[in-house]
Amino acid sequence: MDNVDGTIDWSQIAETTAAPGITARLSGGAQLSAAMFVLEAGAKVPAHSHSSEEFGFVVHGALEVTWAGTRNLVRAGEAFIIPGDVEHEAIALDDGCHLLECYAPPRTPIAPA
Amino acid sequence: MDNVDGTIDWSQIAETTAAPGITARLSGGAQLSAAMFVLEAGAKVPAHSHSSEEFGFVVHGALEVTWAGTRNLVRAGEAFIIPGDVEHEAIALDDGCHLLECYAPPRTPIAPA
Repeated sequence: MDNVDGTIDWSQIAETTAAPGITARLSGGAQLSAAMFVLEAGAKVPAHSHSSEEFGFVVHGALEVTWAGTRNLVRAGEAFIIPGDVEHEAIALDDGCHLLECYAPPRTPIAPA
Repeated sequence: MDNVDGTIDWSQIAETTAAPGITARLSGGAQLSAAMFVLEAGAKVPAHSHSSEEFGFVVHGALEVTWAGTRNLVRAGEAFIIPGDVEHEAIALDDGCHLLECYAPPRTPIAPA
């Protein structure tokens, strides 16, 4: 009754490079997947799309995310939702960004950003 | 090209009481829903279950979450995933807890915690 087996400690998950200046650690279940990204200041997520709906939450820093012709500034503590199959891109501002994302249905295998 | 219509600012979402000492602000899309909970120190999420899979991320503070016979300590920056239909309960530790959650499929209407 006293272990932490069910806790996701991102630092224990292998880091992958998602794009220049962007690392990712991935987790997930049956109905959704999750990722923790660390973006250096100015790092860019190239325009892309995927069928999964995407929820993003900025943990630290700030991110400019563009989709559907609108550029959205998302600061620490704020979030966004991008519908499936909608092309989007992003750039990390300020001192960079820690970005938590969830995808439903799960992205398998998850692609960068 | 320069608005923030797509940004979720939780402070602009009406707050509801999810349980004693626990407030919730809800958002969501077509494939997932999201909630930002603020739990006072010692606040309890009673045992409950729902068909949606639940992803939780502790933004501030710490939470003890119990499911499947295991009590998991989840600290700021850590996360957990509880499969659908699995009974779970939680208690906020320390100075309380800010807890971000995502559910897939969406919980409609979302129930407390």
